[in-house]
Amino acid sequence: MDIDRKTITRLSRYKDAVKRLAGLNFVRIFSRNLADATGVSAAQVRKDFSVFGIKGNRRGGYYIEDLEDALNRVLGKDLVKNFIVVGVGNIGRALLEYEVLEEHNIQIVAGFDINPDKFDPEGSVPVLPLDEMGRYVSENEVELGVIAVPAIACQQVFELMLATGINGIINFAPIWLQAPEGCIVNNINLVGEFENLVYFADNQNSKEVKVAND
Amino acid sequence: MDIDRKTITRLSRYKDAVKRLAGLNFVRIFSRNLADATGVSAAQVRKDFSVFGIKGNRRGGYYIEDLEDALNRVLGKDLVKNFIVVGVGNIGRALLEYEVLEEHNIQIVAGFDINPDKFDPEGSVPVLPLDEMGRYVSENEVELGVIAVPAIACQQVFELMLATGINGIINFAPIWLQAPEGCIVNNINLVGEFENLVYFADNQNSKEVKVAND
Repeated sequence: MDIDRKTITRLSRYKDAVKRLAGLNFVRIFSRNLADATGVSAAQVRKDFSVFGIKGNRRGGYYIEDLEDALNRVLGKDLVKNFIVVGVGNIGRALLEYEVLEEHNIQIVAGFDINPDKFDPEGSVPVLPLDEMGRYVSENEVELGVIAVPAIACQQVFELMLATGINGIINFAPIWLQAPEGCIVNNINLVGEFENLVYFADNQNSKEVKVAND
Repeated sequence: MDIDRKTITRLSRYKDAVKRLAGLNFVRIFSRNLADATGVSAAQVRKDFSVFGIKGNRRGGYYIEDLEDALNRVLGKDLVKNFIVVGVGNIGRALLEYEVLEEHNIQIVAGFDINPDKFDPEGSVPVLPLDEMGRYVSENEVELGVIAVPAIACQQVFELMLATGINGIINFAPIWLQAPEGCIVNNINLVGEFENLVYFADNQNSKEVKVAND
């Protein structure tokens, strides 16, 4: 089986929709329901589920409780995942305080910066000097990290982070980082997302452009 | 010509790379250089440029100044684009203060919230009561907006925003919003990005998964 980023992104959306529908006391749920709530086709929902061995009954749909468990298991949500954040500027600070992550078993355990004004070792999420990152990561067995530093510092922080043995990185700096062997990198370019929107909003009446809403 | 989101995302990356290389005093630049800096193939770079009529010389490459102008023109960067942000929590606050956006001619002109503690009409980016959004948008001719409210408030804010006539929306709430006729919606699911990373970091030694780094 060949699983790409888009499949997992859809799974993550299904999981969120299932959670909301469970909150509305749904007991059974149909592929059509999830299709409507997430903007994909019902056939795609069924196909994605079958890839991961999630089985329903065509007539009866899926039991929502079983489905939620299955999706959480595939996405590794049964365990808390610890992340560090390097760069406690606007974006880094927002992530340190973003309680929605915690609701999804994603825990930001520490922030790191080079600016002493940012240090806060006693904070609810401690902010420490960058040169303590290696020690912290090995003592706390952290495997995942976020880069939220300015573009100019990005490459250096990336190398420092790789040297600690971290094997999964989300990068918010507007530099495309290439994943080396043994490490996954997810580049998120926020400015690019704004530029994308601007382009398609400006050109939406033109017949020349199409937006693949994915 | 058929232009999709990925094309514009790549263009946005090329533009950033060109800007950095211009800072290193490059005069000419080759498709291979941009390929290396952005993680696509050189053939893809040339193809993307040709779609927008950006012409180089195979031997001589592209003049970096002309290229920068051309990319900025395609992406509409010659004009400042004004956005409002609804929801001044962690993510909304970070965007209000994210100076990188301004460097890219993206201006957050006002924030809106329902919590009086957040109101700050005299701030460098004013934060106003949500019920002033309609008036503000029409008086200031804003066409673009960001939703950064909790999931539960998302649909309602979306409808209010559409009613103001805004025609392009970036949604950070973890709910997939479907774009109605005449409005572009770019859904950004931050939790989903974390979940994606977790999945592929956990499974990177498995032969079953592949990461399409796009």
